[in-house]
Amino acid sequence: MVENAPAADSPNPKVQTMADLLAASKPGDWRALDPENTLYVELASGRAVIELAPAFAPGHVANIKALAREHYYDGLAIVRVQDNYVVQWADPEADKPALARKIQNAKRTLPGEFDHSIDPSLSFNRLPDGDVYAPEVGFSNGFPAARDPKSNKMWLVHCYGMVGAGRDVAADSGGGTELYVVIGQAPRHLDRNVTLFGRVVQGIELLSALPRGTGALGFYQKPEQRAPIKSIRVAADVPVAERTALEVLRTDTTLFQDLIESRRNRHEEWFRFQAGHIELCSVPVPVRAAAAQPSR
Amino acid sequence: MVENAPAADSPNPKVQTMADLLAASKPGDWRALDPENTLYVELASGRAVIELAPAFAPGHVANIKALAREHYYDGLAIVRVQDNYVVQWADPEADKPALARKIQNAKRTLPGEFDHSIDPSLSFNRLPDGDVYAPEVGFSNGFPAARDPKSNKMWLVHCYGMVGAGRDVAADSGGGTELYVVIGQAPRHLDRNVTLFGRVVQGIELLSALPRGTGALGFYQKPEQRAPIKSIRVAADVPVAERTALEVLRTDTTLFQDLIESRRNRHEEWFRFQAGHIELCSVPVPVRAAAAQPSR
Repeated sequence: MVENAPAADSPNPKVQTMADLLAASKPGDWRALDPENTLYVELASGRAVIELAPAFAPGHVANIKALAREHYYDGLAIVRVQDNYVVQWADPEADKPALARKIQNAKRTLPGEFDHSIDPSLSFNRLPDGDVYAPEVGFSNGFPAARDPKSNKMWLVHCYGMVGAGRDVAADSGGGTELYVVIGQAPRHLDRNVTLFGRVVQGIELLSALPRGTGALGFYQKPEQRAPIKSIRVAADVPVAERTALEVLRTDTTLFQDLIESRRNRHEEWFRFQAGHIELCSVPVPVRAAAAQPSR
Repeated sequence: MVENAPAADSPNPKVQTMADLLAASKPGDWRALDPENTLYVELASGRAVIELAPAFAPGHVANIKALAREHYYDGLAIVRVQDNYVVQWADPEADKPALARKIQNAKRTLPGEFDHSIDPSLSFNRLPDGDVYAPEVGFSNGFPAARDPKSNKMWLVHCYGMVGAGRDVAADSGGGTELYVVIGQAPRHLDRNVTLFGRVVQGIELLSALPRGTGALGFYQKPEQRAPIKSIRVAADVPVAERTALEVLRTDTTLFQDLIESRRNRHEEWFRFQAGHIELCSVPVPVRAAAAQPSR
């Protein structure tokens, strides 16, 4: 049955597992999160950390930071958890003009940033195995992305942990007041239909393990089922001592190429058959606690 | 930005959404679960229903039913919940010979049933958009499957909700005493490495929303964190009145072909861009409560 697979225990010094590669990584293989492009979502259960992607959604990133800075999100709640799909938070009273939370300086809606022209200054580490949905897929500064050279477009991809701005039927009806996180099989049919603007880099399990809502689309049916959002803060606005110092593996390096290879063909002893391929949303982008920062 | 996408609201009587198709389905588009090939996993939170796939893993299905019938699983526990990966249950004392649960008539281990020769008598509804991992993918009697005509092999695929038999390093070290369910992005690197034998058709949220384990690989670190398995029963052994009567949409029909098309190009009003493609693990296989059974 596995006669064509390489023996799992064949000694091959050239073949390294992901664990080997990370153990041998150099400090320069990692990059620290930029506090100006990092959000902390504070829940009763802890903190989820989102890295923002201003290169792909500059308007939404700016607006979501503005909303966070005017404390728009503080006291809102997770209102929807749909199994194998998304967790979503919003103002539960958004549809009631008298009760809906007011916005001070940010915008309520923005034009969609569903895709944009290919920016040659952005790194793009293309994967070798193709994709069912897009002509090219790979990583751009740590984010899963796709490109269509023919139309000269580039967009972020709905992999597990990606964060987007919900919208209604009109393309320009989103803006950041309702946010969602992917917690299931990559819903690629949403690509280019909605604005993705970041990725959960720590704490996804605080969202993905929430009880599923039993209403239509996974909405909670009773207010008391909702999970309150204590606050959402831009990391730069949080005292240094209270920040979560994280580093993300760089995706524009030889090490990351080797990591992809280590996942296309798994040489851990357990494997009997090697896939020889990998899909974009199955490539891990490792995150680790940053080394202690020099005191200021 | 969406100038090349069809207008979402263009009237086209030929185009139907999945909801339209299911509303118009005929009784013959559905099939009832076979009680001899259905497992009920009883948890404190409710019942998860697994459809077994004897066509793909006859040895494991027979052995797992034998284990269920000798009450092997009753009182075991979910010991591992790894985010974006798997939920697993087992005998927590399996590694301690003096404490490990005894097996009466079933087998502890079996040869792996990782793939098998293509069986021309099995239906295979091939998807049109290809796959990153396998030469052909599609559905066989409701199960996501792949084929390689060159080597004449066929195997089940690790989509969300699929159930497999964990094993140790040796290929023949599994057998059904440790079972896992996929609760995240399809871990396709496991395909052909481990025996898949069924799919959760109802109650997946009882597993996928469990707290994640904080030990290595998502194992719970404290016994009290484990979720007890009250029992696992073959549906045929449960009184008819206590069964969960379900029907699964047939995958060898014109309706299912139309459903796939309705998901490749989404005509619901919300969509601005149509993917034009679909991946195997993103195709839903609808399940519904069966019409009332005639009394016996």
